Amino acid sequence: MTTGQRIVLAQYPKGMPGHDDLKLEAAEYGAPGDGEVLLRTIYLSLDPYMRGRMSQAKSYAAITRIGDVITAETVSEVISSNDPGFSPGDIVLARSGWQSHAIMKGEALRRIDPALAPISTALGVLGMPGFTAYCGLLKHGRPKEGETVVVSAASGAVGQLVGQIAKIKGCRAVGIAGAADKCAMAVDEFGFDACVDYKDADFREKLAAACPDGIDVYFENVAGDVLKAVIPLFNFFARMPVCGTIAYYNAQGLPEGPDYLPAFMRAILVNRLSVRGFINYDEAEMMPDFHREMAGWIRSGKVKYREDFVDGLENAVDAFQGLLTGKNRGKLVIRVGDDPTA
Amino acid sequence: MTTGQRIVLAQYPKGMPGHDDLKLEAAEYGAPGDGEVLLRTIYLSLDPYMRGRMSQAKSYAAITRIGDVITAETVSEVISSNDPGFSPGDIVLARSGWQSHAIMKGEALRRIDPALAPISTALGVLGMPGFTAYCGLLKHGRPKEGETVVVSAASGAVGQLVGQIAKIKGCRAVGIAGAADKCAMAVDEFGFDACVDYKDADFREKLAAACPDGIDVYFENVAGDVLKAVIPLFNFFARMPVCGTIAYYNAQGLPEGPDYLPAFMRAILVNRLSVRGFINYDEAEMMPDFHREMAGWIRSGKVKYREDFVDGLENAVDAFQGLLTGKNRGKLVIRVGDDPTA
Repeated sequence: MTTGQRIVLAQYPKGMPGHDDLKLEAAEYGAPGDGEVLLRTIYLSLDPYMRGRMSQAKSYAAITRIGDVITAETVSEVISSNDPGFSPGDIVLARSGWQSHAIMKGEALRRIDPALAPISTALGVLGMPGFTAYCGLLKHGRPKEGETVVVSAASGAVGQLVGQIAKIKGCRAVGIAGAADKCAMAVDEFGFDACVDYKDADFREKLAAACPDGIDVYFENVAGDVLKAVIPLFNFFARMPVCGTIAYYNAQGLPEGPDYLPAFMRAILVNRLSVRGFINYDEAEMMPDFHREMAGWIRSGKVKYREDFVDGLENAVDAFQGLLTGKNRGKLVIRVGDDPTA
Repeated sequence: MTTGQRIVLAQYPKGMPGHDDLKLEAAEYGAPGDGEVLLRTIYLSLDPYMRGRMSQAKSYAAITRIGDVITAETVSEVISSNDPGFSPGDIVLARSGWQSHAIMKGEALRRIDPALAPISTALGVLGMPGFTAYCGLLKHGRPKEGETVVVSAASGAVGQLVGQIAKIKGCRAVGIAGAADKCAMAVDEFGFDACVDYKDADFREKLAAACPDGIDVYFENVAGDVLKAVIPLFNFFARMPVCGTIAYYNAQGLPEGPDYLPAFMRAILVNRLSVRGFINYDEAEMMPDFHREMAGWIRSGKVKYREDFVDGLENAVDAFQGLLTGKNRGKLVIRVGDDPTA
């Protein structure tokens, strides 16, 4: 038996998830069965969508039950294998959740080549967040050269890449973020043309000034007050891929008024907007193009990325709270165990 | 000189437009200049979109100025012509507005053949409302056989056709309307599978019961409380063409809360909705198919239509108020002058 730790759903959180909702507990992992491998978690990905999995509301994914390990992708090392396709020491991408170890079917794993890029990038720029930015912007945003692309949560795992892909496509890239240093990062590190802090008192005026030709593509990660400021700036035939609505994730019931639904509906009608919710795994046909293009952009220096590492599974709950309140700087990753490739 | 009447914008209305905003006045029409014709209005089309033209807010059309005749399509007769392409007695479709006569460039007119169909249908089933239903449903709703299509304002000029085209495409057609006789008309006359009265106390339950397999296409004419009832019923990958938001047309400022924007944004994300505002004149490439198909459907009895005639230009303002409050039954048309083909 291997002894480790895992974080399980103890109760459905009301509002911000805390330690009473997400409980760290000891766990034991036996030997892998036929076709299975025993994994040791190296990196654990924390992403805003996980808040939706901690709820019983309708979602696009299976509901997490009380006692289940919280779902997540990890980069893990094979410790022992009962699948002829994997050997101890192999580095794999696994949907193994918030825990130090896991027993997984070999067929559910994807091998990672440590020679190509730092293995943590399989959770970020070369993984789900990178692909989300790529397919959401290109398929549902359809940016054309010379257009203005605006993205909220601009310094986050997805947003930082949306702006850089927009620049590669010849667009003006404007970010929205919630701190001065995040805005500086978007401009100085990721090459956005401008980035506006939504916590500034004159945010609406600054956003309008940053988009002198209006908004052609708005990549939505946040919603809430950020969306309200974007609505008046849409151009005719603008596109709005909806990737996330983090402003609402901890909300209980509907907020007080006024009711902004009429303003949004009018903007949709008058501007002939295309608003499209999307989830990366619906777009699997774009995955080969993504891997080829993104790897090329990283090699050529056209795409940069920023990761924010937090050490220790025991710090995952606090780090997740920080993610939902904007404390992270770049793609949030929990370093659960030693990285043998680093 | 020909003496007649016209209705002009006297002031921008606040809320429901009234006789102080839309003033009937005497008018004189001279002789047509080079390339022009003098028209006598037979039928005047009243449509909800006209409320948007009586405002200074951003819209997809030119703003009506104080003193301008209110814009509208008409079916008119050529009285005298200085354009070799037109002769007295010709029946034409004209954008000549709320008036008894007009001088128009011949090149802006489209000839109507009275042998094909009653000439008033050029304002309805074979005109803008018919084309709006056709292109909005087929291009932006993309109904597939066996799906459920819901349309608000189901007995109106557009809605009655959306349901019938949905049936032709093999879908379940469910209407939403604001009176028991409108709902009966949708089912008995237009062949909808069901139609629900949004003024019923248990409207939400009835709508859910009428859509046992959820909603795949929601053709939006109304918004407001009707949309709020639709939001929980969307299926994954549902489409929502936004044709109108009549519930808001007379609104001044945003309504009181709660704020339903979060509920709508969550539905967009979780269901991967495609929400698309559209206006018929962006879809001109579909016009030939529309004319061919719709004429065929009318001939074969697959499409029926209902018109609601009101006599006299002097009654246009009251009739328009009735249109915005749901008093009409079918496509609203003002009979301004005698129909020589009837």
